[in-house]
This record gives sequence, C-alpha cells and structure tokens, in this order.
Amino acid sequence: MNLQVNSSVHPYSIIIEPGSRKQLYEYIIEQTKKHPTSFLVITDDCVADLYLEEVLNSFPNHIRVETSIVPHGEKAKSFQQYENLLTAALQFKLDRGAMIIALGGGVVGDLAGFVAATYMRGIPFVQVPTTLLAHDSSVGGKVGINHQLGKNMVGAFHQPSLVLYDPELLMTLPEHEWRSGFAEVIKHGFIADKEFLEWLRRNVTSFQHWDMNILSEMIYRSIAVKAKIVEEDEKEAGNRAFLNFGHTLGHAIEAELGYGEITHGEAVAIGMKFALAVSEKVFHVNLNYETYLKMLESLGYDLTIPDVNIHKLLDRMKVDKKSYNQSIRFVLLKEFGNPELIEITEEILLEELSMKKGG
Amino acid sequence: MNLQVNSSVHPYSIIIEPGSRKQLYEYIIEQTKKHPTSFLVITDDCVADLYLEEVLNSFPNHIRVETSIVPHGEKAKSFQQYENLLTAALQFKLDRGAMIIALGGGVVGDLAGFVAATYMRGIPFVQVPTTLLAHDSSVGGKVGINHQLGKNMVGAFHQPSLVLYDPELLMTLPEHEWRSGFAEVIKHGFIADKEFLEWLRRNVTSFQHWDMNILSEMIYRSIAVKAKIVEEDEKEAGNRAFLNFGHTLGHAIEAELGYGEITHGEAVAIGMKFALAVSEKVFHVNLNYETYLKMLESLGYDLTIPDVNIHKLLDRMKVDKKSYNQSIRFVLLKEFGNPELIEITEEILLEELSMKKGG
Repeated sequence: MNLQVNSSVHPYSIIIEPGSRKQLYEYIIEQTKKHPTSFLVITDDCVADLYLEEVLNSFPNHIRVETSIVPHGEKAKSFQQYENLLTAALQFKLDRGAMIIALGGGVVGDLAGFVAATYMRGIPFVQVPTTLLAHDSSVGGKVGINHQLGKNMVGAFHQPSLVLYDPELLMTLPEHEWRSGFAEVIKHGFIADKEFLEWLRRNVTSFQHWDMNILSEMIYRSIAVKAKIVEEDEKEAGNRAFLNFGHTLGHAIEAELGYGEITHGEAVAIGMKFALAVSEKVFHVNLNYETYLKMLESLGYDLTIPDVNIHKLLDRMKVDKKSYNQSIRFVLLKEFGNPELIEITEEILLEELSMKKGG
Repeated sequence: MNLQVNSSVHPYSIIIEPGSRKQLYEYIIEQTKKHPTSFLVITDDCVADLYLEEVLNSFPNHIRVETSIVPHGEKAKSFQQYENLLTAALQFKLDRGAMIIALGGGVVGDLAGFVAATYMRGIPFVQVPTTLLAHDSSVGGKVGINHQLGKNMVGAFHQPSLVLYDPELLMTLPEHEWRSGFAEVIKHGFIADKEFLEWLRRNVTSFQHWDMNILSEMIYRSIAVKAKIVEEDEKEAGNRAFLNFGHTLGHAIEAELGYGEITHGEAVAIGMKFALAVSEKVFHVNLNYETYLKMLESLGYDLTIPDVNIHKLLDRMKVDKKSYNQSIRFVLLKEFGNPELIEITEEILLEELSMKKGG
C-alpha cells in the first residue's frame, strides 16, 4: 500500500508493505530518486538485536552504511545522545549527500530526524518505524528531543524522504506498546473518520493475533488521516492542533507520573475519555462514545485518571507547547469527525477532573 | 534604507538606519506585523555593556522582555551555550508566540537564530547586527553552532522576521573587526558587482573615519548582492555556493591556526587572493586584480598564507561542508562578477599553495 504526502518542501511516499525491511535499499533508491553518498542507520539496542542485520543485508556491498545504536526508551531523546550522534556523523565523515535512516519507534525517529534536520543544516532521512505508535510520529516531519523542563521542547520540522512501514516488525511488540500506538489510531477515527472508528470496533478485538491485511489496512487508514491534516497545516498553525485530541491532559499525566510510568498512548486514552466528557458538557451534545470506551477497556486500557494532584495537572496543561499566554486550549468534539480547538476555563477543567478522578 | 528578501518561508525586510536601535520595538511591530507575547534578547557581554540598555529602553513598559547574555567570541557557539539558552527560554516560559532578538555579531546571530529555529520547533527571531561581518551572516537564514570537529557543522535554515541594521553600532568596532567584515563586502563585489568593487576602491580608504552615508550605502549594496543570491538559492543547492569565494582556503586557514588567531574575514581575504590566482591559471585569463589587493593591504590586511603545513590545509579543504565525496570544489572567477564552482585537483592546489606560501 502506498500513500503520498505533499509537504511544502518535497512530496514523499509512505509505503506499507510486509517484508519490505529486507528490500530497504531498493525502496529508498526507487522512491526517493536519490543516490546517497553513504548512509547512517540510527537505531536502539532492542531493535538492533531483532532487525538490524536484515536491514543492513538489504544494502549492496559497495554502498557505505554506518550504524549508531542508542539506548532504548524515552531517555535517548536527550541533548547528550543528540550530540553523540552528531559527533558520530562527523567521525564517519558524512557529507551533505549522505542519508540517515531512523530504524525504530518514535524515540529513534524523533532523535534521528533531529540529527538529520541539523547536521550540516539538514540532510535527508528515511523513517523505518518499528512500532505502531510510530505510524503517527513518523509522518508529518516533527522531530526533536526532550528537555528536563518539558518533552519535545527542542526540535524542528524536517520532512522525511520516505516512510517505509513493514508491519511484520510489529510482531515482536509487547502488549503495552500496542496499546500505546492504538490510542493514536482510534484518535484519528475520533477526529476525522467516523467510519474508520466503526471499522476498528469490528476488526480489532485483540492485539495478540493479527491478520496482516487488517493490520496493514489499519495503519494505512490511520496514516491517511494524519497525512491529510499535516498536508493542510504543516507547521501547526491551524487544524494540525486537532491531532492533539486527548493530548493536553495525556501529556500532563505522562509528565506528572514521570515518563515511562505509563505509555504515551495509554495516557492519551485517558485524555481522550476526559476530552469526550468535556465535549459533551461544553457543546451540550450526546456523543454516544461509551461503546468505544468499552472497546478500549476490553483491549486492556485503564481509563481512570491516575491518583495525582489535579492542580499540578492543571499547571502542566498551562505550559503545554500549544498554549498561548498560559490559557488552556483543548481539542473537543462537536460530533465524531468534527473537532474544534477552544479555550477552556480552569473552573470547568477542575470540576471535571475532580469528578472523574478515581472514578 | 530598506531591502526586502523574498524567502520561501516568508518575505522579510532589511532596514539600514542610523539610530534605529533606539526604536527597535516600533520597527519590529511595524515591519513584522507580529505582536509577540514576549521577547528574549540574546546578546554577548561586550555588546550588553555598550548597547543593551538603549535597546531595552525602546520597549514599552507593559511588554515582557527577558535577557540572556552569553560570553563574547566564537566559543559561545557551543552545545553548552545552546542548551543553556533553551533552558533559559523554558524558565522564562516563552511560548510559541514569543520572539527572540539576536543583538550582536555573527556569533550571537548564529547561536540565537539556532535557538529560535529549534525552540518548540521554531519561533520567530529578529537580527540586530552589531558588526560589519554580521551584514553577511544576518541575511539568508543560516543559523547554527560549532562542533569540536568542525565549524558550523550543526544548524538549520531559519529566516529572520526582520534584520535591523543600525550602522552607528559599528562605531565601537576595533580595526580587525572592520577588516573581518570588509572582506565579505569586497567579496560581494568580486562575485557579483564589478561597479561596486570600483565604488569601494574610491570610497573606502580607511576604517577610522566613516561618513555615515557612505557606510550605510556600502552595507546596503553589499547586502543587496547577498540577498539576491540567497533568494535564488535558499538552501544552497546551486548559486549560493558562489558566496563561498575565498572561503575554502579561508576556512582551512582559520581552522588550522585555531579559531580566534585570525579573524574570519582576514582569512577569507587570503583565500580570495589565492582563488584569484587559481582562477587566472585555470581559466587562462588576466583579471587585473592587483589594484584590489593593494587596496586591501593599505587597509591593513596581511594577505600572506600563514606558515602552516599545506598538506593539513588540503585535508581540511576536503572535509569542508561544501565538499562531496572528499573532492575539493572551488569558487573561481572567469571575470569579476562571473563566478563558477569547479572541482580542482589536489595537484594544482598543492602547486599553488607551495608557490604562494610565505610569498
């Protein structure tokens, strides 16, 4: 399956194809029309153990391919790793005709993408996502690292030259990683595709056993929503903010619990449940979303707001990247597929948070 | 005087106006049509002592203006200062509606610009150059920091929202700083404007006593050359490389001597003399450039290639950002105003270097 994203910088393809990791080099040459002078594969230790060899074997012998392996997990999105990778690129004497390959989940994609964005003021890079969550982060060109004062606070927009998705890579994912990624899948249904939402309810009943066709179609349809939105609003000046549905509270929960205590998607799922409730209140509508909450719960999600101080959650929501002048802006739904970005008063949020917490 | 640069991202103005530092805030609002939520002025300790107060006084009381001061000199373009400034921006709780003001020379412009390029994936910034050299670096959107393995190896393209040039700020510059900046001025004449070259010879006979009109016109005409080239080739895929005239050897000399031992422009001047000689040889032309070398010497330039190992110079030229596959590409002149980028063999370079060195 093949999607095209028409970014303002250059169009690029998203290929979703089981087994494609074994032909990575061919896909790159065919799809990007580039002939890089050399390659640097950036991956993490877990992915390296599983898939690095297969990926490297796809390159002909005469092509120079270097490898840098970072530790797995969010902590790799640090200034230190960023600087280390730039040093490695310089030591490998990569020139501006070189290409970086991000082989991994969202962390590797963001980190390697930021290295590509800033090495010699920008060289091309290719995303090879290995998680379901990365179906979201690998499209749209957002790259960056974390700062101790906030996640993703340092970064750039740097569009990939190609996204090559091999769904077979997901077969080794643990359950919580599926949950983390699937929250973004269902989010795309909520904000833009009511039919997809229903398709998901019918077709995804377990993360244990996948039909490769269903998995590929799910990734395709979810990416299609994301791709359309980022095409229309590359630099997040307008509609791209809708992708933040469930994320304002989700990010605050992640940060307050401490990163790694809960996966991104599991926190976003809690945030979506909350945003759905606030939506009904603010717009005086009945969204009938309970059936989807049940679906999420049957897939193992715990949708209860964790036992943290709600005033601290509120403070964190105020310093979100999307906030202006410390007001809190929320993505809410008038109906499925019809999101709106609006300012919410602290009072409404506090009231809802107090009501929902622990129940 | 007013120039407009039509960058692909957004058009921006370059204002050259004596005394304008005292109306910085008004110029920003008028020219950028933005109303930033707050400002962060980034400057260095030397500039802060001289001009920070005047600049800050241009802001109305109700506008929030924060200040970060870095040490002066090339060493400030480090990962450490970069991270410190991002931390400061987060501590000041700057949101995406904030604006960064780079008040300083090329170092401050590059560093502050890179912070602006990557803070929350990019916020607007304004260049307020305080050196002659910065007339070059403040236009075109190149921002970045140094790596111990190479200068400007980490960075981005991030276009300023405004360049506000107050030539009065240059009156406190030491002689070698004038020389550093003027090399880029005359370079613009060499590569693109023969008439300007002649105008310079007639009008610039000393860096001690300036007529403010002559100085403003010189900056204007030199920036006009730069602006036209970067408009045509924003991301350095083609003609922008012509701006590298004199820089291939210049950079190598700077790096080999150790940064700070010779100013950028003084090294570039040596590089231009060398490139002129190589041009005559390669193109079998007579450029009659001696009159301009004399002019430079009368302005205090030492155009002799310093006593360093020429094989080391050659190695450094090979790892230049502009090089591909370790070949050496040089900007040469067929005639004044008619540059060409061509690959030069090591043999020709070695021969010329051996001949010119120390003589």
